[in-house]
Amino acid sequence: MGSGPSGEEELIARHFRPLASHPGALGLTDDAAFLQPPEGADLVLTKDAIVAGTHFFPDDPPDAVARKALRVNLSDLAAKGALPIGFLLALALPADHADDWLTQFAAGLAADAEAFACPLLGGDTVRTSGPATVSITAIGTVPRGTMVQRKGALPGDRIVVTGTIGDAALGLALRRERGPQGGEAGEAALIARYLTPQPRLVLAGAVRRWATAAMDVSDGLVGDLERLCRASGVGAIVQLEAVPLSPQARAMIGTDADLFANALTGGDDYEILASVPEHNLAALREQAERAGIALTEIGTVTANAEVAFVDTGGAPVRFARGAFSHF
Amino acid sequence: MGSGPSGEEELIARHFRPLASHPGALGLTDDAAFLQPPEGADLVLTKDAIVAGTHFFPDDPPDAVARKALRVNLSDLAAKGALPIGFLLALALPADHADDWLTQFAAGLAADAEAFACPLLGGDTVRTSGPATVSITAIGTVPRGTMVQRKGALPGDRIVVTGTIGDAALGLALRRERGPQGGEAGEAALIARYLTPQPRLVLAGAVRRWATAAMDVSDGLVGDLERLCRASGVGAIVQLEAVPLSPQARAMIGTDADLFANALTGGDDYEILASVPEHNLAALREQAERAGIALTEIGTVTANAEVAFVDTGGAPVRFARGAFSHF
Repeated sequence: MGSGPSGEEELIARHFRPLASHPGALGLTDDAAFLQPPEGADLVLTKDAIVAGTHFFPDDPPDAVARKALRVNLSDLAAKGALPIGFLLALALPADHADDWLTQFAAGLAADAEAFACPLLGGDTVRTSGPATVSITAIGTVPRGTMVQRKGALPGDRIVVTGTIGDAALGLALRRERGPQGGEAGEAALIARYLTPQPRLVLAGAVRRWATAAMDVSDGLVGDLERLCRASGVGAIVQLEAVPLSPQARAMIGTDADLFANALTGGDDYEILASVPEHNLAALREQAERAGIALTEIGTVTANAEVAFVDTGGAPVRFARGAFSHF
Repeated sequence: MGSGPSGEEELIARHFRPLASHPGALGLTDDAAFLQPPEGADLVLTKDAIVAGTHFFPDDPPDAVARKALRVNLSDLAAKGALPIGFLLALALPADHADDWLTQFAAGLAADAEAFACPLLGGDTVRTSGPATVSITAIGTVPRGTMVQRKGALPGDRIVVTGTIGDAALGLALRRERGPQGGEAGEAALIARYLTPQPRLVLAGAVRRWATAAMDVSDGLVGDLERLCRASGVGAIVQLEAVPLSPQARAMIGTDADLFANALTGGDDYEILASVPEHNLAALREQAERAGIALTEIGTVTANAEVAFVDTGGAPVRFARGAFSHF
């Protein structure tokens, strides 16, 4: 017949084959990939989708969109104590997407696939009449039976978070008001936190070893802590003044105290929230210090089912909306 | 705080938790699932996405949309010789979707998850301003090192296909012309072939044992055979009159000979195309007979790189378009 590869095959070969370094990906020329699971390991599987206009701005840089799509999945793996071994991608593209968009998207994805040692194993590219949609399934591994769950927090455990909370929610507000660059340097830093999450994979092993329960903070600290507590059948008391804020977030909240609630209930932090027995805290802290990642105690797990955020006087503070939800 | 589960959590609990029978799915209440891979097995991973208006009609029955989304992935596993162990789902829904749509979608998915012993392991539900989009990652297993690839066909191997070819392509044409029900019984049967593929999982083991190369026919027999041959570095000669057609397809082609080309180049067959050494043919045929699935020899693998479809006089026939591509 002599007809060559189809448009889709050429697109895949040009943009995505370079990311498919895993031998089981077969250069993306087959219908499926194969993977030999490490002996004695469990697989950890997670799948998050992002949609233009819902989870990212249609004019966000395409390489940043790709990075975010992969990183939100890697953040899930990190919080479960898992290290990535590869991912699959489904990309639905509008008919009028610019070829350059795809080139930049693939470049961003390639950079992160390499940086996080997480090669592309396979996937699908399809047309949509709607917005660009990126669905990623990430696959990680943990030693058998050791995936860290939301369930497992015990009364008396200390509650810790990595990094700082609320930057992305404040960055999103700035992005909406001021556009992609923000007004000045501090604003740009917050917008960057919204645009490009930092999966805490370097702490995956420490979380697995020292935490009783963990999850990534993707839908707001308040709502996500409630989820962790609900799964564990416990409650929590959190000192609001202990919640770690970046200097930029602190400055912004200083001008509008209502933004503190945004910071605590907004989404897209992609930090690790974990419950840690008191006697494990020093070891976890040492690992975090070695990795250069802030780790902050913000409260304690309690035996009752209530999750309370208290101010410096010990009075509980209520938030209008619990968790931010993209849905 | 006392705020309960979010809208997304309730939606997942109501519609999808019943499908998550695998213990590692944790009732869909965690950020990830875990899976203990069978000893000595390789995982087989595939991911196909379908979009309303591109791969299915927006007014297709929601349960059929769900079944198709899962089955196109199971068809890939079957052709690779793999049996499913579970799947992950990303579902992007328009804001105005009817609640009933989701109920029916979940019911169709639940029925097939059970029928094919392929439980839901996790996923994501998101909002889109565009058409409903269903992305599924299916996970299967094969004994280590035995995934059947497109590569591997050897000169002299016989080329076989399961079932009948072209029904779905003709069904799609009828669906476009006559609406979801078609005109009469024969038309309804072809439309049903388009709507609901039949993954040949019951032959997965036999394909693994007896075929040198295989893939599922999803983008048209002509184009897909070229792909298999290209991956294997071989050619093929196919007797057109040997290509198995259903009585309904034969009747329709009888009224319009041009439709034969449609049948051979159209997509959505989801039959298995395989190359099989002559001495393995009887064993494979016996397995297919036992499973009640037609298996038809249509040609032979050749040492040159050309794929030729020849008529009863031995003259090669050319098709205007090689493979059908959704992209």
